[in-house]
Amino acid sequence: MSRRLILALAGGVGGGKLARGLSAVLPPDQLAIAVNTADDFVHLGLHVSPDIDSVLYALADLNDPERGWGLAGETWNVMTALERLGGETWFKLGDRDLATHILRTRELDAGRSLSEATALLAQRLGVAPEVMPMTDNPVRSVVQTDQGPLDFQDYFVRLQCRPVFQGVTFDGVQHAKPSEGLRRALDRADAIVITPSNPLVSIDPILAVPGVAQALRRSRGPVVAVSPMVGGQAVKGPLGKMMAERGLEPSALGVARHYGNRVDGWVIDNLDRALGSAIEALGCRVFVRDTIMRTLDDKRRLAQDALALVSELSPAPVS
Amino acid sequence: MSRRLILALAGGVGGGKLARGLSAVLPPDQLAIAVNTADDFVHLGLHVSPDIDSVLYALADLNDPERGWGLAGETWNVMTALERLGGETWFKLGDRDLATHILRTRELDAGRSLSEATALLAQRLGVAPEVMPMTDNPVRSVVQTDQGPLDFQDYFVRLQCRPVFQGVTFDGVQHAKPSEGLRRALDRADAIVITPSNPLVSIDPILAVPGVAQALRRSRGPVVAVSPMVGGQAVKGPLGKMMAERGLEPSALGVARHYGNRVDGWVIDNLDRALGSAIEALGCRVFVRDTIMRTLDDKRRLAQDALALVSELSPAPVS
Repeated sequence: MSRRLILALAGGVGGGKLARGLSAVLPPDQLAIAVNTADDFVHLGLHVSPDIDSVLYALADLNDPERGWGLAGETWNVMTALERLGGETWFKLGDRDLATHILRTRELDAGRSLSEATALLAQRLGVAPEVMPMTDNPVRSVVQTDQGPLDFQDYFVRLQCRPVFQGVTFDGVQHAKPSEGLRRALDRADAIVITPSNPLVSIDPILAVPGVAQALRRSRGPVVAVSPMVGGQAVKGPLGKMMAERGLEPSALGVARHYGNRVDGWVIDNLDRALGSAIEALGCRVFVRDTIMRTLDDKRRLAQDALALVSELSPAPVS
Repeated sequence: MSRRLILALAGGVGGGKLARGLSAVLPPDQLAIAVNTADDFVHLGLHVSPDIDSVLYALADLNDPERGWGLAGETWNVMTALERLGGETWFKLGDRDLATHILRTRELDAGRSLSEATALLAQRLGVAPEVMPMTDNPVRSVVQTDQGPLDFQDYFVRLQCRPVFQGVTFDGVQHAKPSEGLRRALDRADAIVITPSNPLVSIDPILAVPGVAQALRRSRGPVVAVSPMVGGQAVKGPLGKMMAERGLEPSALGVARHYGNRVDGWVIDNLDRALGSAIEALGCRVFVRDTIMRTLDDKRRLAQDALALVSELSPAPVS
């Protein structure tokens, strides 16, 4: 029971990348990854968990690095046929990806929890570290926009984030409990790493699950985050636009202010060196590093940087 | 209201072939096709209607003529991925075929009837004649075998008809009603054509829907059937084996005896010329023709033969 445990909090693509880096430098039993499920939805009768799948595919080295989501070598024959039949095709599910959703939906229909379905998929994909949903209860992001409230995937995929982002609610979160895996990991973790996923719609839902933010505060280990903003822009996705529309400074500093004292240490990009002292003034230790993850080496190096920051902030050596 | 109507009763492949022939020689509004649904089942969470799809695909010229089921040019990427994930793959659903099941299941989940879902698919596939399920109520074939009762697809696909066939029940049929489309077609039909589908598991379920057999008896027009047995063998599938195991003579005569006086006229194959008089002795008019349908011309010609037999048996000229 004395082996160390790093708990990563992850959304989709950025979370998957850093999770892959952590999995490259940590033994599998020293890494647990809790994933946002607030953008899960039922589509074409299938339970789709976009962030869980992004993380699983990234850990299994099956993700498509160019498109940024889904599987490498994916085909789209079902979607093409469905389009010919006049079916719903605004949310593209690849053929191989569909198999994941079919299996997950089968498991859920058979009474298994999302945690169990996720563990099964992880096992079948050969993913060794524990990957768990933030909760087994339904939580759904609803985005407040100038066009009214929108289901997350409506906003994110169908409308491609064009409406003005005014905020987001996580419907059902007040009744949600952390998944058993997340609860155990929070109890045991020697450190928590917040991956460079979208804070507003990927990490905030995890922190909003009752008990999680408190567990972070009480954690004996440090909370370390990697900035998803580099040079005033999101590494990927609409975060910059969303922060600006929400009245937050679209920068690593804006993200650091948003998380506030929930984070003890930041890894920000070399491009944001000038923001380092302002972030330190929030009471955080700051590492300035290369944070763009293109190759597996990049991911491994950034994971090592985050773990070095964990070591520096830990009350006693964690290794 | 005076236009004539031919009602075809169809199972899967043989039914689809003759239906295609009929659709080639009749105006779309003079042909209605009622299809067996007793081998429908829910697989991978999707409502699969194998016979309806075989008929729709055949009418749309989308069926695979070599494999005998499913779509031409089909791909299997979802199944391959599902197999890698350890999912259920004994019943092969092609990628393009999956789109059909997804759309049908969506419609049923939205509260539409199978008749409505079938009409939508027919329209989207460009199928002009009316195609309807025999019933909108759930009816399921359960095959009695030496290994006990088996769900139809378990017997037919998973076990490839290896268990000894002892009979079949159509669970739920006593509570089923003919679909609205079938009821209307039965009222109006100038003739009924029983296509060369498996009598035991494809046509009998249609005849077992309460009211259908009576409507056939009361019908003002003749009932004409095309034999699915040629030269003592089924044109396709396990019918010969099933008949022999059930104690029925595996021949066109055995099929004619099985349908009994429900059929007024038979089209049997030239190879079975010797059985003609024995079938006539049952009280049926018999046409001896080429009944193997390989090309569209074959299908058209056999449809014309069946319609010529209809004309000969009709109380007044139907055209």
